This record gives sequence, C-alpha cells and structure tokens, in this order.
Amino acid sequence: MTPECPLPYAEHECLLLGHGAGGRLTAELFDALVLPALGGVPGAALEDAALLPGQDELVLSTDSFVVSPLVFPGGDIGSLAVHGTVNDLAMRGAMPLALSLAVIAEEGLPLAELRSVLVSAGKAARDAEVPVITGDTKVVGRGACDKLFLNTTGIGRRIPGLDPSATRARAGDAVLLSGPIGLHGTAVLSTREGLGFATDLASDSRPLHRLVKALAPCGGDLHVLRDPTRGGVAATLNEIAQASAVTVEIEERSLPVPPAVASACDLLGLDPLIVANEGCLVAFVTAEAAGRALAALRSLPEGAGAVRIGEVTAGPAGRVVLRTLVGARRVVDMPLGEQLPRIC
Amino acid sequence: MTPECPLPYAEHECLLLGHGAGGRLTAELFDALVLPALGGVPGAALEDAALLPGQDELVLSTDSFVVSPLVFPGGDIGSLAVHGTVNDLAMRGAMPLALSLAVIAEEGLPLAELRSVLVSAGKAARDAEVPVITGDTKVVGRGACDKLFLNTTGIGRRIPGLDPSATRARAGDAVLLSGPIGLHGTAVLSTREGLGFATDLASDSRPLHRLVKALAPCGGDLHVLRDPTRGGVAATLNEIAQASAVTVEIEERSLPVPPAVASACDLLGLDPLIVANEGCLVAFVTAEAAGRALAALRSLPEGAGAVRIGEVTAGPAGRVVLRTLVGARRVVDMPLGEQLPRIC
Repeated sequence: MTPECPLPYAEHECLLLGHGAGGRLTAELFDALVLPALGGVPGAALEDAALLPGQDELVLSTDSFVVSPLVFPGGDIGSLAVHGTVNDLAMRGAMPLALSLAVIAEEGLPLAELRSVLVSAGKAARDAEVPVITGDTKVVGRGACDKLFLNTTGIGRRIPGLDPSATRARAGDAVLLSGPIGLHGTAVLSTREGLGFATDLASDSRPLHRLVKALAPCGGDLHVLRDPTRGGVAATLNEIAQASAVTVEIEERSLPVPPAVASACDLLGLDPLIVANEGCLVAFVTAEAAGRALAALRSLPEGAGAVRIGEVTAGPAGRVVLRTLVGARRVVDMPLGEQLPRIC
Repeated sequence: MTPECPLPYAEHECLLLGHGAGGRLTAELFDALVLPALGGVPGAALEDAALLPGQDELVLSTDSFVVSPLVFPGGDIGSLAVHGTVNDLAMRGAMPLALSLAVIAEEGLPLAELRSVLVSAGKAARDAEVPVITGDTKVVGRGACDKLFLNTTGIGRRIPGLDPSATRARAGDAVLLSGPIGLHGTAVLSTREGLGFATDLASDSRPLHRLVKALAPCGGDLHVLRDPTRGGVAATLNEIAQASAVTVEIEERSLPVPPAVASACDLLGLDPLIVANEGCLVAFVTAEAAGRALAALRSLPEGAGAVRIGEVTAGPAGRVVLRTLVGARRVVDMPLGEQLPRIC
C-alpha cells in the first residue's frame, strides 16, 4: 500500500475475533484493509468463489477451517473442509473438479486423530465425487497452533447457463431455503461447551452441489445462490440485499428452525438467524420459476425440507426485513462480529 | 481407511516437528498415513503441483506458510507465500494464472502487521504478474495460533512441450542449479535467534517462473525441475533419485555456497545442502541441452549465478553422492526430520 493510502485503522488497533466472524467487521476488514493491500477494488462484490481470468467457465475458491472441537455430532474438521469448499464452488453454479488439502498441525497431535480426520476428508471427497489431487503438511511447535487447521481450495466448472451472483437479486424474486437452519452452529457449540444437547443436535454439514445441479434447468431464472455459513441467514441475506441494492423480506413463520435448535438458542441467547449452517442454501429465483425450483430442491434428500421463506421487494437498498409471527416487521441487521467463534 | 488398513503407527504415536520438515519423516507420513487416508496410492510420485484431471494443461498447487518470524531479511510471510506457490507451479512447467490467499490470524495481531504482510503479498503477486482472485480470513483466539499463517493455492497453465517430473531423470542428464544455496534458511534462522548475521544474509525468496519460461525451448530435453525448499538440495536430489531410480552425483567444488552462508552453517553446525532455499531451482537436462539450458538460465538476473553441479549416473537407484573437494565420495542422505523448524 502506498503512502497515499493510509492505514484505515488507528495505529494501535488489533485484530478481534469478530474480524473473522463473517459479519460487519469482516466486511469492513476486507474492504478497508485486505482488498486495498492486495491491489483489488474496494466494494467489489464478495462472492464465495472467483472466476479464473481468461477461462470463465472455471472458478476457484479457498477456505481455511479452524473449528473447535475437531470432531462434533454430524461431522469433523475433515468432512467440513471438503463440504465447505465444494459448497463455495456450487454457490457460483459450479461442479467441483478437484480439491487441494493443506494441513497445519501442532507437534504432539496424536497420529490417530490426524488419520481420523483425513479419512473423513477422503470419504467426504469420494461421496462428493471430487478428487483431492494435491496437498501440503506443516507442523508447528507445541502451543503454536490449536491441534489442527485445514485449508481446502477447489476448482470447479460452471454449469452452462448458470451465473448466480450476490448482485443479481431483483424485485419480485422468490427467496428459497433448502432445509432447516441453525444445526451446525448449535451442534458445535453444545459439544464444545459440554452442554449436553449433543443427543438432539447434529451438524447439517453436507455437499450442496447436487442441489445446484437440480436447479440448473432454471438457467437465467436462478439469480442468487448462497450457503449461509458464518453469520448465518442474517449475514447472507444482508450481503445479498446490499450487493443487489434491494430489500429482502422474509416470513418468520416460514423459517424452518428445528425444535432442538430453538431450545438451544433460547438457552444460549442466540438468534437462529445468525447461527452458522453448513448444509443448506438460499436461492433467489424469479417468481415464475419458484415452483419449479422448489420442486427441484425437494427432489433430493438434502433438499427434502426446502421452503419459500420470502421475496425481494423494491424497498430501501440493503435492507432485510423479518415479518414476525404476530405480523410485526423488524429489520434483520448484519451481525456485527463474533457470536460463535471457531465454528468452521 | 477401512479396518483392513490398520494405523501404520503405534497407537500412542504423536506428530513430531520433523513430520513437517520435508525429509524422510514427511515422506513416510505422506505414504503411510495421508495418502491412504485420502484414498490415494502410496508410493505415487510426490510432485510440487498436480495436473487437473480432464484438463492436463492446468496444474494446481497448495502450500501453507508458518514461517517465524513473519518478517526476515529479504522478505516476509506475504511475499514468501506468493513466491512459494508460483514456484511450485513453475516446477511443473506451468506459468501462474491465479492465486487464492487464505489467512489464519491470532486475535490481537496488530492490524498494521497484517496490512504489511498483505501489501507485501500483493506486491509480490503484481511483480510475478499473477492476480490474487479469492481469499478467506479466519481469526482464532489468543494462543490458538502463533500470530499469522497463510495458505496460497495456485492454478497454472503448462507451457506446451514441457513435462518435467521427478520421475524423468535419466543417466547422462546434467544437473543444473540456478543460483546460490542456503540463503533463505540461514537468514530466517539468524533473525529468529537474534544471531546478528542479518547484515550479511538475506533470503533468496523470489519467483522462478521466468527462469522456467527461459528453459522452455529445451522442450523434452528438460527432464526434471525442482526448487529445493524444505530439506534443501539434499532432500530434493534424494526425492528425484528415488522417483527416477537413478544415482545423482554432484561436485562439492561446483556448489555455490555464499561465504556468509558457509560461516553461518559452520557456527550453527548445519549442512548447507539441507538448508531451505526459496529462490533457486534444480534442473535436470540432457547432456546435449545442458549448455543451452545454462545460457538460458544465465540470461535472467535470477539465474545469473547458474552452474552445473553434477550429473545422473546409472548407479544404485535412489542414491545421491557428493564428490568432495579432496576427491572423496560421500553419500548425501535424505534428511530425517527437522533441522530448522518453521522456515516457510
């Protein structure tokens, strides 16, 4: 960064957990520091995966995984790392071609634990029909990292005719959700804190690319695809509303919140709308295509619980509104920072 | 891994620093645990980058960077992360098309430090003419990682006619080295330990893809390309000798060891042959092409110090031999484990 581009933060400011939480602080850090430093254009749309320059049918996506604990009901860091990147590719309308897998591990990690998560990653990759073609292993001294971090990077090829983007939501679009929300975050948290919800809750971690393939016949009627991970449905809808300069209105009565998630959230003072998911997607489609899209999602087990949760209106740009059970309307804010650290 | 494939280590065994050092322990871990867990074939040639299935002109490579300290003479973790992956692609004969950059940072890291290494990464990417097109930022709590780790993953396109591979060394090949060895490892170590060599030593961290482009006219005469990073020249030549089932003989008198590196290694009891480099490459070419290849390397500033250090013979498979200054021959072993932790 050149002198004419001063540090956008006070000199003494330090990184907060919230800067990595997928909310407002993350977006600010990205726009004010990361993107200018790397020579990008601030305000550029944040997408889950980027098109490869000069070959726009190929997309690239990267994600690091620092979830704690390493194993949780419904998955572990290995399967999560595969699903996370497969899903980021899928959200750009792409089927996965290949993954890389990089390990950073702490000296003293039992080799059996390392093997277990790598076996899980291998199984997840085979289930998703994507090969892990290259990798890297770094070991750091005791205390220099917390057990194990993984990075997966994926290459995918876009399904012809699909060009979903956070910038393409239009007034009149139907907002679809492929399944229940809040499972991943509450399952990880209950395991970590030993809260004993573990019997009722399991992460929804799963690959979503087959749902996207099922949506392919919608073609240009499919405007936006996103998986509501860090920051949950609230962060995802806010990002879309902002990137597309529209208002998104959702119905509380339509939101599929499993009873176990609702109980856990009540007890912990969490809002299910901002809890991370790892196995559902939000799709914005034209009103005409909504019925077909919903049927396509429901045709697969992972989309059996798909519902329409709202629509896009021509209201103020960047606003998300929830119509509550009693008919009131409340603004759903972009979560600021960290509600549930190290959830993925 | 299925039950018929038991854990290849004793039940209580834990990860050692040496498992990440690029030597014998790393190779064993990879063959015995990582590859079977992920469903690959043990004994498969280790290459710096993998071909994308179904599109063999594209290659993928990933690398995590955990170097300590974050800044050292001649570079920092940001520039190193860009050069490292550009070079891994280049070693498969590929020019870089795009990079991803993923950050794992510790809560409390000064934002000015984060900015500084990202600016450095951005500058290194522009200098190498490769765009950083996607990224990810995770923040973990204090004590859960040591300041900052980076992962870069790169896609490259192979130069037509080039197919260098660690398996392609043949008896008679000339072994070329593009520049002095030992600078990166000794520079990082002297900074870390406050040994005061810093004035004499600077990392050789730099992109090597232009050297590879200069070698392109050698075409099929260029058999092997490798950058001797972790484990140094000793590990690299041993890997090649093993993968190609040949003997590699090098001349001590030809090895370009800068005086400052020699002094540092003397003082620290290190062998310059196993110290990590980040800015030179080893090329195996046919005897006929050796003169042209050497001239091509020397035509660029980063290859000005290129020399011929030895040749491939039909001796025992997997052996590396050094002819010493006094004419003796000694076997150069694969380094076992960790000599210099967290060097990249």
